[in-house]
This record gives sequence, structure tokens and C-alpha cells, in this order.
Amino acid sequence: MGETVKVDASLLDLDGMAFRAALPTGQELVMDAGEDHGGRNLGARPMHLLLAGLAGCTGMDVISFLRKMRQPVKGYRIEVEGERAEDYPKVFTHIRVRHIVTGDVDEERLAKAVELSESRYCSANAMLKAVAEIETTWEVERE
Amino acid sequence: MGETVKVDASLLDLDGMAFRAALPTGQELVMDAGEDHGGRNLGARPMHLLLAGLAGCTGMDVISFLRKMRQPVKGYRIEVEGERAEDYPKVFTHIRVRHIVTGDVDEERLAKAVELSESRYCSANAMLKAVAEIETTWEVERE
Repeated sequence: MGETVKVDASLLDLDGMAFRAALPTGQELVMDAGEDHGGRNLGARPMHLLLAGLAGCTGMDVISFLRKMRQPVKGYRIEVEGERAEDYPKVFTHIRVRHIVTGDVDEERLAKAVELSESRYCSANAMLKAVAEIETTWEVERE
Repeated sequence: MGETVKVDASLLDLDGMAFRAALPTGQELVMDAGEDHGGRNLGARPMHLLLAGLAGCTGMDVISFLRKMRQPVKGYRIEVEGERAEDYPKVFTHIRVRHIVTGDVDEERLAKAVELSESRYCSANAMLKAVAEIETTWEVERE
């Protein structure tokens, strides 16, 4: 058995939809619904956290592989776009992940780093792809 | 086709593992690895965001159903505990969700609200349960 982690979330006020989550690493995070759903947009939509988690998970993998490959990364961003089903439970049916690396980085090595994360290391990818079709692309921006 | 949403994440500095995510609703969120993985614990672990998202998603469903049922909720918290696989990609294999409602709330109605969220409405639950076994419990704390 691997690591066990616990997140506690509490309703912030009795009229709203905002919850404060206490993360196992000490940080806090506020989630809220939009005004169209009784919220006040005080924090992240819960489902957006799944996309952010995917971005961070694969991003940390890829930057770590690129460093091991001694690639001169000058910048790195990830765009994650999710398309939800029209009907409840409105899961993400398609997710596009775009890795954009700046610097004089070898394209084959970047492709390899992205592939390693996607196929073997990234926990969030492995979970979300059971439901969503995940399409991953990468590109190098020369300075 | 339902809603499409986009999250952008950028590497914060070229020596670290922290990413800043820009959420579609305007908030920002920092993610980081722990010191054991080259990070500085400046933000949430990406995989913890999946658990927080699940807590917020089901929590907003349940509180909204309880209000429609005119239940006198005086407090509400959710504990989400995830157990990860030992081997890569280290997905969550088991997730326990515990709903704890304070107030003079009817137990059958709470059971119904939780069941509706779990079986039909909660998008995060529907996604994560494709990989993790999700065990949900609820309890009422009388004041």
C-alpha cells in the first residue's frame, strides 16, 4: 500500500456554497460556485482543480525529466483544456494538454519526457484518462 | 457538447518545481512539490487537488439538496482520504468520503442527498470512481 492523504473541507458560511479545504501539506484552498449556482465566486470551481492538478502533475514530471536530460529550459507552460459532457454527471469527456517549452531544447527529448509522464508517471493523467480522452501535444518556442 | 474550460499553468522559477495555475474564474493557484522531490512546498501537491475537487464537488451538491429539502444545517464538513498505489503511476486506489453534517437534520434526507450526488450529479466522483474504489459515509452531529 502506498501513501494515504487526507483533505478536510468545511462549508464557510451557512448561506453560501464556498468550502475551505485544508490540504495535508498545510496550505488552504477555497472553492466556490458561481453566482448562477448560489455561490459568490470566492474560489476555484471544484472541477477546475482536476485540470489544474493534471497540469501540475505532468508539468512536474516533464520539467524534472528535462533537467535530468540537461536541457536548457528557459520557460515552460502547460495549457489544459477540458470539454464537459452536456448531461449529468457532466464529466470531462475530452482533455487537451499542450506543453510549451521555451529554450534551445531538443525536440526528441521533449517528446520522450512528455511520453514518459503520460504513459507511466503522471498519476492524474492515469486517473482522468479512464473517463476522458486525453490528447497531448508539445512544442518548443525558440527564444 | 457541454462547457469547455481552460487552465494555464506556468513554471514559477527555473530552479524549482512550483507552477502557478490561472483558473478560468480568475483565481490563481500555486502548486509545488515537497522538498524530497525538488520543490519547496510553496503550494498544493497536484494530486491533493483531485481530492479537494471531489470534496468541493460533492459538498456543493449535498448542501444544495439539503437546502431544497429545508433541512436546518448548522455546519457541514467533508473528510476525503485517498490511498495511493505503491507503483507508478501511483493512482488513488481507494478514496473514503465522510460527510459530517451538524444540526437537526433528517437522516433519511441526508442519505438521499449524498446518494444523489454520488450516483448522479457529482462530476468529480464520476471521474475518479473509474479508477478508485470510493467509499462514502455520512453522519449527523446533533448540537
